[in-house]
Amino acid sequence: MATDLVAAVDIGGTKTAAALVGRGGEILERVQRPTPAREPAERVLGTVTDAVAELAAGPLWPRVTAVGIGSAGPVDARAGTVSPVNIPHWRDFPLVERVREATGGLPVTLVGDGAAIAAGEHWRGAARGRDNVLCMVVSTGVGGGLILDGRLRPGPTGNAGHIGHISVDLDGDRCPCGSRGCVERIASGTNIARWAREEGWRPAGADRDAGAAGVARAARRGEPVPLAAFERSARALAAGIAATAALVEIEAVVIGGGVSLAGEVLFAPLRRALGEYATLPFVRGVEVLVAGLGTDAGLVGAAAAGWSEPDTFSVRGAAGN
Amino acid sequence: MATDLVAAVDIGGTKTAAALVGRGGEILERVQRPTPAREPAERVLGTVTDAVAELAAGPLWPRVTAVGIGSAGPVDARAGTVSPVNIPHWRDFPLVERVREATGGLPVTLVGDGAAIAAGEHWRGAARGRDNVLCMVVSTGVGGGLILDGRLRPGPTGNAGHIGHISVDLDGDRCPCGSRGCVERIASGTNIARWAREEGWRPAGADRDAGAAGVARAARRGEPVPLAAFERSARALAAGIAATAALVEIEAVVIGGGVSLAGEVLFAPLRRALGEYATLPFVRGVEVLVAGLGTDAGLVGAAAAGWSEPDTFSVRGAAGN
Repeated sequence: MATDLVAAVDIGGTKTAAALVGRGGEILERVQRPTPAREPAERVLGTVTDAVAELAAGPLWPRVTAVGIGSAGPVDARAGTVSPVNIPHWRDFPLVERVREATGGLPVTLVGDGAAIAAGEHWRGAARGRDNVLCMVVSTGVGGGLILDGRLRPGPTGNAGHIGHISVDLDGDRCPCGSRGCVERIASGTNIARWAREEGWRPAGADRDAGAAGVARAARRGEPVPLAAFERSARALAAGIAATAALVEIEAVVIGGGVSLAGEVLFAPLRRALGEYATLPFVRGVEVLVAGLGTDAGLVGAAAAGWSEPDTFSVRGAAGN
Repeated sequence: MATDLVAAVDIGGTKTAAALVGRGGEILERVQRPTPAREPAERVLGTVTDAVAELAAGPLWPRVTAVGIGSAGPVDARAGTVSPVNIPHWRDFPLVERVREATGGLPVTLVGDGAAIAAGEHWRGAARGRDNVLCMVVSTGVGGGLILDGRLRPGPTGNAGHIGHISVDLDGDRCPCGSRGCVERIASGTNIARWAREEGWRPAGADRDAGAAGVARAARRGEPVPLAAFERSARALAAGIAATAALVEIEAVVIGGGVSLAGEVLFAPLRRALGEYATLPFVRGVEVLVAGLGTDAGLVGAAAAGWSEPDTFSVRGAAGN
């Protein structure tokens, strides 16, 4: 029997997904469960191992050679541990060791969720064929990962590309991470909605959604506060993207996540603001691309990170596909 | 005769230096001239080629196998051209081709001055033996370069690590680069002195120096405005360093340049501010190191970039030295 599949695991603060992924990035089987994020560490782990066990009970499992995990961060890929902000009882939790035990000793690779998404978009999504790209998720939070020189660069601990927590406003509001004026603190869906409400905006008519999607609909109708809320988010994103371009030289940024579904309400001011912040010759012209894989990016990228022959296949080998 | 030397060229807005550099990073011969930065393109080039010709007239020249150039940026390493902000008549100037012609066809490698300094500090300076480091110069301007995964990462065009022009204050003052709130616009020596003077500070007593060195001396005497000027610079530097750490994971930052000579007047508030902005587990504990090579870093690094066997020697091969 061929041994050509990876078991991919995508652990977020809201949901945990696991899948069998083939060498073309195709998802052959998938299970998904809510993450019991506030419960004790072993309960959270049980959700992961149960999901994997469900896959393992199927007929394809003997073809699995490795496990790739993309987890909410921060992670520590060197130690194999995770300490996700949104899963409070996982602190330095030995996720790699525990999943290895639960899968009978399969090799397990861990990266942060931002790195996983970047690997997925580079392998099979909007960053395909590109050498230097920042891949972002703009959603409840803001995360990201980096493709440099044609391959994923997760960094020593698997957290590189953490654009949500760079400060673009050094005297700005305190961020839950402890810093100030972080991109996420200004640009995330949560903060778009918070800012709009603080400015007096309320959902109108039949629309009862006071979240970012409601703000986006109101902006599309031309309401000034919602438009300003997206403008403000777009400027923070642009300053962060321009900073990334100046630091590592990227040719494109791929943007996914719930807030990106706002479409031109976000992307039009984002492109304008990039013109304002990305001014040096080598950072001008960063292309803004819409993510290609949607919510599958994390699973597909975890699979890419999990392949065990990094030089012949997986993230590095897939660069030119 | 051994062929074991590189001709290194370091082109700045103020001075142009050229040197013969050996395989241990030792400078065997050196010439230096003022850069005629405002003069026509061919005059500026003449300064470079005259400096190289002076080296070529010496007895060691037959041992030279390659030329490495670190130039004020932006550069375009792919095209072999430079467009330094401070040398207005060099725009897309074909520096690599012209230096190749002037040296009888030797291979010429071009990187930005920030990348050159990073290569130098990694090869023979304070970043030696480290795998992920941001090397900075804080002087009239603010520049930098990146060591990632044990080797220089100049980026596709040679400009990566451009920390001086990332925005840490998205509504801040307009920077000459066109953006706003850039690290350089707040933290450079020029801007430390400008801010102190705008706040009413004047050099006291026998000290007539209204520049950054004068501000540093006044800060050391405990004058409040000069102390605040360095504090402000330190916070902008810290926000930029923390952003770099979040984006690419660095273990240390190496800081050189004239403003770094202020010592604890700069470094004490910088370490404090790093504690404020570098808060996530994987960015905490970035070490702050003082540059080891002084003004030689650019020449030594240009030599490292210039060696023609990148896998056996030079920047990549020197990583573990």
